[in-house]
Amino acid sequence: MISGRCAACKNQRRKCPSDCIFSPYFPANDPQKFACVHKIYGGSNVGRMLQGVPTYLREQAANALYLEAKWRIDDPVYGCVSIISSFYEQIQNAEIELAKIQTQVAFYKLQIQHVEAEPNLEVLQSQSINMEQFESDNPTITSWFN
Amino acid sequence: MISGRCAACKNQRRKCPSDCIFSPYFPANDPQKFACVHKIYGGSNVGRMLQGVPTYLREQAANALYLEAKWRIDDPVYGCVSIISSFYEQIQNAEIELAKIQTQVAFYKLQIQHVEAEPNLEVLQSQSINMEQFESDNPTITSWFN
Repeated sequence: MISGRCAACKNQRRKCPSDCIFSPYFPANDPQKFACVHKIYGGSNVGRMLQGVPTYLREQAANALYLEAKWRIDDPVYGCVSIISSFYEQIQNAEIELAKIQTQVAFYKLQIQHVEAEPNLEVLQSQSINMEQFESDNPTITSWFN
Repeated sequence: MISGRCAACKNQRRKCPSDCIFSPYFPANDPQKFACVHKIYGGSNVGRMLQGVPTYLREQAANALYLEAKWRIDDPVYGCVSIISSFYEQIQNAEIELAKIQTQVAFYKLQIQHVEAEPNLEVLQSQSINMEQFESDNPTITSWFN
């Protein structure tokens, strides 16, 4: 079965048993996938981790291990933690942006209410709410995510 | 120096050399930190990975390896990939939410422009822009993140 060996068994230069734990998730035509996890975890650790999850979840586990290994090879200091930090920062920024825009919406709604209550444009313009004043009067609006 | 052994050397039941690669990052008073990385990567792989990064970045690397190992122990199938997926989904949702609210802002701005151009409230009300119509006329506004 030399020609039918999976990437893991090829890498380890051994026979590929019919019940090989790696074979379904590390095919011979993608040697890079096993090379990555082998470099970071070691082959026996990967086998042990796959054994530790139910068969129907092993493909997901193998793919997640591969991604984590790849990220660590790409960034030997932070690995996937750099992606998580960057995503966390993006979420924080989006929340700040959302809060700002929601303040803007509240401001415009209030301005339209003024128009409806007093349809005289000159009065509206002289009485119109100042956006900065509105934000400082409603500080909780900009911090409702925190 | 038995009493001064770091968590890694204690775990491996060996002497802790003065130039131990683990000692600064895996102190004896936090055995769990080494136990986690040892379980996922194996001690020698962790030592090798720390050797592979400059000394001033080893603390960050040790901490990132610990986090990744902890996430994998907590979730043996997806590890940190589940966090990354969840954050990615949150970013997508925030972007959709932002796009919707920006459409709302554009709608209100347009409504206010109408008031300024035609300060007669009855005309405004009869001519007022329909929000759903506005969104269907400006489909790119809701999809500018994609």
